[in-house]
Amino acid sequence: MKVLMTGFEPFGGEMVNPAWEAVKLLPDLIAGAEIIKLQIPTAFSDSVSAVEEGILRYRPDVVISVGQAGGRSCVTVEKVAINLADAGIPDNAGEQPVDEPLQADGPAAYFASIPVKKIVENVCGHGIPCHISYTAGTYVCNCVMYHVLHLAAVRYPGIRAGFIHVPYSAEQAVGKPAGTPFMPLETIAESLEYAVEAVIC
Amino acid sequence: MKVLMTGFEPFGGEMVNPAWEAVKLLPDLIAGAEIIKLQIPTAFSDSVSAVEEGILRYRPDVVISVGQAGGRSCVTVEKVAINLADAGIPDNAGEQPVDEPLQADGPAAYFASIPVKKIVENVCGHGIPCHISYTAGTYVCNCVMYHVLHLAAVRYPGIRAGFIHVPYSAEQAVGKPAGTPFMPLETIAESLEYAVEAVIC
Amino acid sequence: MKVLMTGFEPFGGEMVNPAWEAVKLLPDLIAGAEIIKLQIPTAFSDSVSAVEEGILRYRPDVVISVGQAGGRSCVTVEKVAINLADAGIPDNAGEQPVDEPLQADGPAAYFASIPVKKIVENVCGHGIPCHISYTAGTYVCNCVMYHVLHLAAVRYPGIRAGFIHVPYSAEQAVGKPAGTPFMPLETIAESLEYAVEAVIC
Amino acid sequence: MKVLMTGFEPFGGEMVNPAWEAVKLLPDLIAGAEIIKLQIPTAFSDSVSAVEEGILRYRPDVVISVGQAGGRSCVTVEKVAINLADAGIPDNAGEQPVDEPLQADGPAAYFASIPVKKIVENVCGHGIPCHISYTAGTYVCNCVMYHVLHLAAVRYPGIRAGFIHVPYSAEQAVGKPAGTPFMPLETIAESLEYAVEAVIC
Repeated sequence: MKVLMTGFEPFGGEMVNPAWEAVKLLPDLIAGAEIIKLQIPTAFSDSVSAVEEGILRYRPDVVISVGQAGGRSCVTVEKVAINLADAGIPDNAGEQPVDEPLQADGPAAYFASIPVKKIVENVCGHGIPCHISYTAGTYVCNCVMYHVLHLAAVRYPGIRAGFIHVPYSAEQAVGKPAGTPFMPLETIAESLEYAVEAVIC
Repeated sequence: MKVLMTGFEPFGGEMVNPAWEAVKLLPDLIAGAEIIKLQIPTAFSDSVSAVEEGILRYRPDVVISVGQAGGRSCVTVEKVAINLADAGIPDNAGEQPVDEPLQADGPAAYFASIPVKKIVENVCGHGIPCHISYTAGTYVCNCVMYHVLHLAAVRYPGIRAGFIHVPYSAEQAVGKPAGTPFMPLETIAESLEYAVEAVIC
Repeated sequence: MKVLMTGFEPFGGEMVNPAWEAVKLLPDLIAGAEIIKLQIPTAFSDSVSAVEEGILRYRPDVVISVGQAGGRSCVTVEKVAINLADAGIPDNAGEQPVDEPLQADGPAAYFASIPVKKIVENVCGHGIPCHISYTAGTYVCNCVMYHVLHLAAVRYPGIRAGFIHVPYSAEQAVGKPAGTPFMPLETIAESLEYAVEAVIC
Repeated sequence: MKVLMTGFEPFGGEMVNPAWEAVKLLPDLIAGAEIIKLQIPTAFSDSVSAVEEGILRYRPDVVISVGQAGGRSCVTVEKVAINLADAGIPDNAGEQPVDEPLQADGPAAYFASIPVKKIVENVCGHGIPCHISYTAGTYVCNCVMYHVLHLAAVRYPGIRAGFIHVPYSAEQAVGKPAGTPFMPLETIAESLEYAVEAVIC
């Protein structure tokens, strides 16, 4: 069993991306499954090709993409990706799509094919808050989630895929306004580990 | 150098109090100072007498009381205690003072005599968010802070005192609404350790 | 031109539903269009049949359903409805579907066919905050939005449809915790009026 | 009976100050009391002298200062002012005191001498949320509240005084992030009117 975990490059003026930092902290084996870690660009076009290259190279059974959702207080597991790109700021390659479909002939949405409720229960069961989210936004995170589910639907039918959002790390939240929620990177990584465990077992 | 750290019993329907749980995790020595840990009742009258007993017994140089502030996202250092008791729920002894002064002949407020800005800077400097708070509320936390500062002012002039509020622990936040902020107990304890360090050094 | 505006009955222990209260305050004509007001049950099954009855009876060109989203601070226009029912509490008829599709053979999602960005711009242009939302939840609101868009897709192709969430009214927020956002009913109704105007013009 | 209501000039990059805009909307008579409206500078030194000039000129029985608290969701009545100036940004005169007492020989704090609970009850009783606040911050708002209460204590013993914070107006919140709370100016002014009524009656 192989799990491809992707994490984004920093964006939006941040020096680090807690998604990639947490993915890097994961062990190489979780519940017997091999964990492959891949950093991908925070860019609409390049992110998708980077994940597909990873799929072709590593032949994973599961693809879990991880992204930063500054302002959320815990790890959230996305239920659905929508066929829409609407960027409030340019991506790291300078692209800024406005109100465009991600896939001209694609369906309005894909549901995650990893078990989101089971993941949430497993993380919570280990004493760390975790919730389902019903929106991955309309930026690069939703784009990657939609495209990987689309690829799985049309080209790689054996792959299960999904997306997990993580809060700011503690270090990132220093200097931000009082009330900004965060999690230590180690606790984010632990949440991801329990998430993978729920997918595998 | 001796630092008396107090933490409250659970209240308001919670099974644990992250303040006391974090105080228990502290080492017995921080920056050369001896750390004395004392659990106190979450009750207007009994809390104050428990702290004064601790003062008489241990003769500390510094008293830092620690309490739970559910809903805050990081450790906050209180700047000021006010001469007011106004309880939204009964305390653990069943008392519920409404709009009463804590000390009939006391001043309207006391400022913390521990260096709140230096504490915040030291915690933040170690990569953990921390903020000053200008209200400790009107429940037992404010009561303890006010009374200890009053005792220091009138009876134990060598003592420096203050109050630190901590968020829900991760375990407590499980099952609470999405968006409820929290910190792992270990990270709360780390924050307290850096706080003590800033007071001592 | 006819616009059918639906508003829900109270639910979740509330005495009123600000959605229906605000719909009732609307004028009978907006920008030349006739406004038809229909209260519908807060129940998975009954809500949909009530809206379809309204469609058959009034033959509207546009159907805008309005619901309460306690905790949001302004009127939000929903972009997407998903094929999922997952109820945290029973509906007013006692039904509580868990993780079920709304329509066995339906697509994963429908996008609103009313112009959500134009609506937001028109409300904001009149000095009232308004935002797009990318999740209508998984309760009766999302159910009605999904089903009306499904009906429009398969049976009533001329109809444009969408969903608008409104915050607690001022009266409802009295007695709720400090920080609970709200809007006066009159301002909610004004927002709805500018929303309809944007759809019509 | 005369009530002096002060409201600040805009600050912090805002084009208007909802405090002054709402004060301007007040009637000239509330519950038989004459309402005198005075705009004051958002500056540590000048604000205080402006209020004292107003006191000398109008000989009010009550002084209520009103200020903006962006981020709060309803009108809040301040219970206490503290002897501390600590400005995160320069005031409109370019002054930025850091960790300084407002009054070298003043007490640590003054409690409002207007009846804060009665005010909150009267506003809520008219269907508009309102809460007590236990911190007026450490910027110009707290400065004015502290100094007016100090003046009343040492020089004008007949005067009752207090401070009321108001949220962003609807217009101000347009363009701010989703979730930013606000109130229509008319509803802010209504709240102030019920507040004055509670002081007078």
